Amino acid sequence: MNDISGELKDIFPCWVKLTEKQRDEVNRHTDERHFKKGQFPHRGDVECTGLLMVKSGQIRAFMLSESGKEITLYRLLPWDVCLFSASCIMNDINFELHLEAEKDTVVFVVPAEIYGRLMKTSLPVSEYTRKLMASRFSDVVWIVEQVLFKRFDSRLASFLLEQMNIDNTDTLLITHDEIARHMGSAREVVTKMLNYFSNEGIVALSRGKIKIQDEKMLQGIV
Amino acid sequence: MNDISGELKDIFPCWVKLTEKQRDEVNRHTDERHFKKGQFPHRGDVECTGLLMVKSGQIRAFMLSESGKEITLYRLLPWDVCLFSASCIMNDINFELHLEAEKDTVVFVVPAEIYGRLMKTSLPVSEYTRKLMASRFSDVVWIVEQVLFKRFDSRLASFLLEQMNIDNTDTLLITHDEIARHMGSAREVVTKMLNYFSNEGIVALSRGKIKIQDEKMLQGIV
Repeated sequence: MNDISGELKDIFPCWVKLTEKQRDEVNRHTDERHFKKGQFPHRGDVECTGLLMVKSGQIRAFMLSESGKEITLYRLLPWDVCLFSASCIMNDINFELHLEAEKDTVVFVVPAEIYGRLMKTSLPVSEYTRKLMASRFSDVVWIVEQVLFKRFDSRLASFLLEQMNIDNTDTLLITHDEIARHMGSAREVVTKMLNYFSNEGIVALSRGKIKIQDEKMLQGIV
Repeated sequence: MNDISGELKDIFPCWVKLTEKQRDEVNRHTDERHFKKGQFPHRGDVECTGLLMVKSGQIRAFMLSESGKEITLYRLLPWDVCLFSASCIMNDINFELHLEAEKDTVVFVVPAEIYGRLMKTSLPVSEYTRKLMASRFSDVVWIVEQVLFKRFDSRLASFLLEQMNIDNTDTLLITHDEIARHMGSAREVVTKMLNYFSNEGIVALSRGKIKIQDEKMLQGIV
């Protein structure tokens, strides 16, 4: 087992507030895992992965309906920590979350039982966990607001701008079907709205590609 | 100031884990407040109420869009505790929640600054807060699932059954408009589906009243 305490110090915000003994335990039990783009670091229905810290790459956290419909709840970028892959240690969480690597991704995993023990014995870890949950809670409430209170054109414009920002490009390599899965919508609905955006000169569409031509108009729609 | 420590012991789950000094502080600063049906114990956009514990009555927690659309996120019944009326002490919460008394209601309010201090210094209170948040988080994720993944007939059937359960009657005194506000929907949509239920003999409709005639069929629709 390698000593990864140097990296943990950077990536795990509670590190400096742990005792020597707690640090040693986390260091000894934390695994580094590698995932290719398209692989699933966590499936909510089958496993209890533990606390997951993103070292590099990109992950989306999504919900899946019985009929196979999806919606992306939030993205995990380097330095982000995923709490709900450890939800098995929290009795009061009764939903299942799935994680998919959107790029080749490296994560640190603190096993669920180790993190569960820390959370119950360390006030800083308990406080950290509560804050992390509050922040994800806000993300999900934002989704509720979007889905219930916003028109679809505004949601789609918002999604395209976010994606530009994450990918740092104005040419998105994404299919209409993928967008529908992120947004909990249907491909036909996405295609119809993208065609409308295209007619207005806001985007240019080609196979598997969307080029943003008028960012300002997108912001106006949001 | 009355000594309400006897009641706090029953209603505040962390009470037995507090120190004498902490109990004394909570006891001295906690207020009892009375609200008539239709009043608002908390408005997310204007106040920081504090931790709110329901002694008697019934409260709904809801979100409000800029355009005045609403959706009920969960109900607070006697012995329930509302965390988000104290969200001002949690920097990582960035949404606003409103509370409306659905019956004449009595609550205890622990001021935000007192609860904030407790949370940061007491591991049991921090753990309790985290669990409470996890449980509300699950409620909101359930709403996301319903809105995105369920058909409207199933959601409406589910709402009627829940309401029967809360009110303990098969004759609901509720208008179509009120149902729409609970569900984040429009009155016309609710009316249309209720008329369909009525034609099927599942409910009987009259002014301001919905009588459930076939609970089993409702469960089937869910």
